[in-house]
Amino acid sequence: MPANEIRLALPDWIDTVDTDRVYADDEARVALAIRLARRNIEERSGGPFGAAIFDDAGRIVAVGVNRVLPERYSAAHAEMMAFMAAQARVGRARLNDDGARYILATSAQPCAMCYGASFWAGIDGLLIGARSADVMELSEFEEGPLPADWVGELEKRGIAVRRDILRDEARDVFTLYSNLGGQRY
Amino acid sequence: MPANEIRLALPDWIDTVDTDRVYADDEARVALAIRLARRNIEERSGGPFGAAIFDDAGRIVAVGVNRVLPERYSAAHAEMMAFMAAQARVGRARLNDDGARYILATSAQPCAMCYGASFWAGIDGLLIGARSADVMELSEFEEGPLPADWVGELEKRGIAVRRDILRDEARDVFTLYSNLGGQRY
Repeated sequence: MPANEIRLALPDWIDTVDTDRVYADDEARVALAIRLARRNIEERSGGPFGAAIFDDAGRIVAVGVNRVLPERYSAAHAEMMAFMAAQARVGRARLNDDGARYILATSAQPCAMCYGASFWAGIDGLLIGARSADVMELSEFEEGPLPADWVGELEKRGIAVRRDILRDEARDVFTLYSNLGGQRY
Repeated sequence: MPANEIRLALPDWIDTVDTDRVYADDEARVALAIRLARRNIEERSGGPFGAAIFDDAGRIVAVGVNRVLPERYSAAHAEMMAFMAAQARVGRARLNDDGARYILATSAQPCAMCYGASFWAGIDGLLIGARSADVMELSEFEEGPLPADWVGELEKRGIAVRRDILRDEARDVFTLYSNLGGQRY
């Protein structure tokens, strides 16, 4: 591989995700993100975070899981991997430049980096499971500083936000991770 | 390439950067970031942004330029590409986990995403050329929302910040980009 080229990969088990299914409502979409986070722990293929991008009909465009330690890249968060995979699939840097709507579902509130990335990815909605406070409480992962009105900043740029979707199930993922002695980084 | 694997590349001309030189002071480090941004425009290999990561002695660990449109990835900002290349080179997700110090120099103030990414990359210092206001004024690139005390949030986590380094030279890059009709995205 040339020195100037970097390769990032999702785990092989990602191929088993049912991409034909329609994820019709917000709960089904976040439930998938939570299942991805849980599977990532069980497979020991990365940190306890999952994300998925859907088109307006609820079909999967791409999924992502945290790959920071396996890929040795600090920005390989679930949301970033999902953006990368989705943009590679549609062949453009801003998903909704085709005029369609795209929704990101994530198992936990995006960190400061993934929050910023959400403005550039071309998404129209953000569905969130666990709160940052849950992540901190249960796993000690840091989330980084956000603008005071972080939800408002998204919404005024056309990205609708819905939080606390399946929050209990999302919290359970971090409890599992801690119970298994998962590394915090 | 497998569907779950993504490849990101810096332009070939990156190989011509003098990596043997010692960039002893802050100005020399930001000057390199500005030269990278300018070259990226001239070569039409991406947006008007450059970044470089140095060790404490002033030797280059890795460099980055904006590759959003060529790589069709919204997060392929100069700072992110530099983090990725540096972490690939040292073989770990957090640069300063080896106990050494690492400094990021960037031609312009990091956007909201790159700002967040700076907390996870393992850097100890951030050297900035142009201000966000310059970027907006001269090129209309959006920078996204930051916490009110964005500098203080970095410094209280051990990342020293110095701004307005070679600001005029850094501003000139955006003027050049606009004069050449460079695309805003």
